[in-house]
Amino acid sequence: MNAVAVMEETKKLNAFFNPRSAAIIGASKKTAKAGNVIFKNFAYNKTRGVFKGEIYPVNPNEESILGFKCYPSITEIPEELELIVIVVPAKIVPTIMEEAVTKQVKTAIIISSGFREIGNTELEEQLVTIAKKAGIRILGPNCLGVYYQKTGVDTLFLPETKVLTTGDEVIATPRPLVGDIAIVTQSGAFGVAALDFLAGRQIGISKFVSFGNKCDVTESEMMHYLLYDNETKVILLYVEDIKYGRQFLKIARKVTIKKPIVALKAGRSAAGARAAASHTGAIAGSDKIYDAAFEQTGVIRARDMEEFFDMGKALAMQPPALGKNIGVLTDAGGPGIMAVDECESSGLSVDRFSEETLQKLQKLKDQGVLPKFAAISNPVDLTGSVTDDMFEVAADLMFQDPKVHGIILLGLHHLPALREKYIDSVVKVSGKYTKPIVMCDIGETEMALYTRFRFDKLGIPSYPSPEDAARAIKALVSYGAYLKKNNCAEEYIGEFLKKKKM
Amino acid sequence: MNAVAVMEETKKLNAFFNPRSAAIIGASKKTAKAGNVIFKNFAYNKTRGVFKGEIYPVNPNEESILGFKCYPSITEIPEELELIVIVVPAKIVPTIMEEAVTKQVKTAIIISSGFREIGNTELEEQLVTIAKKAGIRILGPNCLGVYYQKTGVDTLFLPETKVLTTGDEVIATPRPLVGDIAIVTQSGAFGVAALDFLAGRQIGISKFVSFGNKCDVTESEMMHYLLYDNETKVILLYVEDIKYGRQFLKIARKVTIKKPIVALKAGRSAAGARAAASHTGAIAGSDKIYDAAFEQTGVIRARDMEEFFDMGKALAMQPPALGKNIGVLTDAGGPGIMAVDECESSGLSVDRFSEETLQKLQKLKDQGVLPKFAAISNPVDLTGSVTDDMFEVAADLMFQDPKVHGIILLGLHHLPALREKYIDSVVKVSGKYTKPIVMCDIGETEMALYTRFRFDKLGIPSYPSPEDAARAIKALVSYGAYLKKNNCAEEYIGEFLKKKKM
Repeated sequence: MNAVAVMEETKKLNAFFNPRSAAIIGASKKTAKAGNVIFKNFAYNKTRGVFKGEIYPVNPNEESILGFKCYPSITEIPEELELIVIVVPAKIVPTIMEEAVTKQVKTAIIISSGFREIGNTELEEQLVTIAKKAGIRILGPNCLGVYYQKTGVDTLFLPETKVLTTGDEVIATPRPLVGDIAIVTQSGAFGVAALDFLAGRQIGISKFVSFGNKCDVTESEMMHYLLYDNETKVILLYVEDIKYGRQFLKIARKVTIKKPIVALKAGRSAAGARAAASHTGAIAGSDKIYDAAFEQTGVIRARDMEEFFDMGKALAMQPPALGKNIGVLTDAGGPGIMAVDECESSGLSVDRFSEETLQKLQKLKDQGVLPKFAAISNPVDLTGSVTDDMFEVAADLMFQDPKVHGIILLGLHHLPALREKYIDSVVKVSGKYTKPIVMCDIGETEMALYTRFRFDKLGIPSYPSPEDAARAIKALVSYGAYLKKNNCAEEYIGEFLKKKKM
Repeated sequence: MNAVAVMEETKKLNAFFNPRSAAIIGASKKTAKAGNVIFKNFAYNKTRGVFKGEIYPVNPNEESILGFKCYPSITEIPEELELIVIVVPAKIVPTIMEEAVTKQVKTAIIISSGFREIGNTELEEQLVTIAKKAGIRILGPNCLGVYYQKTGVDTLFLPETKVLTTGDEVIATPRPLVGDIAIVTQSGAFGVAALDFLAGRQIGISKFVSFGNKCDVTESEMMHYLLYDNETKVILLYVEDIKYGRQFLKIARKVTIKKPIVALKAGRSAAGARAAASHTGAIAGSDKIYDAAFEQTGVIRARDMEEFFDMGKALAMQPPALGKNIGVLTDAGGPGIMAVDECESSGLSVDRFSEETLQKLQKLKDQGVLPKFAAISNPVDLTGSVTDDMFEVAADLMFQDPKVHGIILLGLHHLPALREKYIDSVVKVSGKYTKPIVMCDIGETEMALYTRFRFDKLGIPSYPSPEDAARAIKALVSYGAYLKKNNCAEEYIGEFLKKKKM
């Protein structure tokens, strides 16, 4: 395909996120059914004015569902259809797709499972053959589909709340806030778990796509779509395999000079690959090939789930680092050492500051602005005598040091003279520089949660352990190095800071 | 020292935790001072009947503090003193110690800093020389000392709550519940951060000891003391260096055949070691030596903070595994693969089940007890059709398989037909076997938190990511292998299960 054709294909994907009309095939009145939850999502969003298009439940056994007229098949629907969501048993799906061809539908999300992942490869290929006749794009099968807050497209069949046996209703699958991170995931269950994690941590998302067996639309096409999506700053990609290697390499390269991609690639071990094959029919291939592909294309690979989210958060909130030397600023010696250890073991450095910075810090010690027992050669350890003001002056000096490319701040709130005032002043200082900063406070009770939440809210990503903070800044260093190598670091940082100020 | 003398020395350490009388030197009325917080802890615990001994504030400038008669020096106190807590500037500490000799004090906790960690090595050695004259044992200096709920000894100068600039009072340094885990830490700040973490996660502790510069009592002696402490099941040890290598090897070996030790050794990198030197005066030495020492003595080394706590929790709640093959039971494909990947990459295996188990699982599928799309060869993936009952039957079969040495359960609560009933039934099943089980649910909102909390409460350690769960069971495998090698696995497991039932 030439460039114009590629862009046309990409534009078509828009109907997954912003359809003028949608039919839910397999819509149901029975609350235990996926078709009930999904249609309810649309109906709820439609009646509240979030979903602005038309919606049509399709089920031959019902006259109406939740007050909406029900159709026996999509061919009976008088208006045009941009999106169909299919939630019926696998064996009926080809028939539905034939009807979709007749109806000239643009896009189809096939939630149903029972295809390639259990060996029914032919049945799955049949779908693609049918869809190709009318240029219908398919997401799935065996997927959760799309969640996009702004237009109210929500094909997740996992209800937001559940009622326990005690009768209590509790949040079970929350939808997160609006934010900058797109989630693109092969595993549906991991996808909803991600939503739950991000909602609880108050990290917002721009779009959520679960693509399952990806018989048609691939992870790469979706990344290409997100490249042109102004609401997405970072792409988090969970994959068990990658379908077309060349397509991936080409698109990933194109995306990563504009937007960071963090990948969590499962099935890296032999037993893991075996499990992946029976999950989404993935043929995982050698893990080294993936490592090389990610490295070449500037995709940042997360080692595990926590790192995946931690890196995404850092990249969404902070500019990349233009070098690998990290300044560590702490009020707690031990956690400072832990951060340094993690930096060094992941290939970052924590070198002594420049002589000028050391002299300035020493002067502040002599003047009593910093504690007389403070260590200052990097890490700066403000010790148990730390006050709110000390963090501000020390951070400012560290940002100024040309040898420092980014800062890890360990602001353990426990120390007696520290209150919450330092949060705002550190944020203010960091706003003067284009270097990144991440922070850590340890603890799971009120003041720790408050401190981390406040930093997050003001744009400095916070982490619950020193090592997590170090791994997060590692992502900023890796991404910065890739951008520099491709001569687009300045442009990216310029754009990033412009958007951040908006 | 012969064995009897060693035991005598160990018994002496009891006065740190259970003193019949305690003086706080540097007790103060000024709320910003450490001497105020510490004396208040004792005063509060004394008036509420928790601390049953006598307490004496010592400060030449006050007549009384918080209603307790104040003494100008310990030599003026008419009664015997078992414990003194010193919170005065470093240069006065030798004088106080001379008085302690006169007074025949048993134990001294020196909170004050300004010794070896800033190069004042002589001043620190002076303390030891003085103490030796009367056989006084010193904890510290430059430490936080002891927290022990049962007797009300609380020398932490970090107040439990803080008042923010808004006027709101919030939990800042919570004291955790009573439990099985002892925390022994060189870094005070890390120690309180640990308390905050454990309190928030509702993990209880038996004793907390921060030993700082350890001029006298070493980490090894403390571990030896805890070996004979019936309240401690697991020891979590944070160190930046180990003082006497031989003593450590000898004692660690003695302890680990009875109680697991998890170590977090900071300062493993060159820059980290440099930071450690200026923190507690630690001379970190080659990290490989530590690796070898831990390996030889059966001490389990945690790679980072999170693993440290995760492993401690697993060892406190579950018996060790007598082999390294793990059964993975999941309702979510992707997270199942992530657990398998982490198992394999950390040296565990996830082999196919025995033929007998596979046949039984297949029969359950045929009967419709398990979903027809379920994967069963390990992992068992119950898929999105999971119900509460399925987890119970599948777990039972997996426990029975002689090839399975431990189970990771991934019970993602999001799936529609799953409620909370399965928690209790899985706990019941696991109670029939002596093999360990750990669990994971992903999410940070209500039902995820409820699920993890409930499992914890019922004795199955829960984790927020699949990889965390895999690393936790790795600790149970490592410890099991060490016990087997030393022919004491059966005895340990017998004791462990007996205590668990109490």
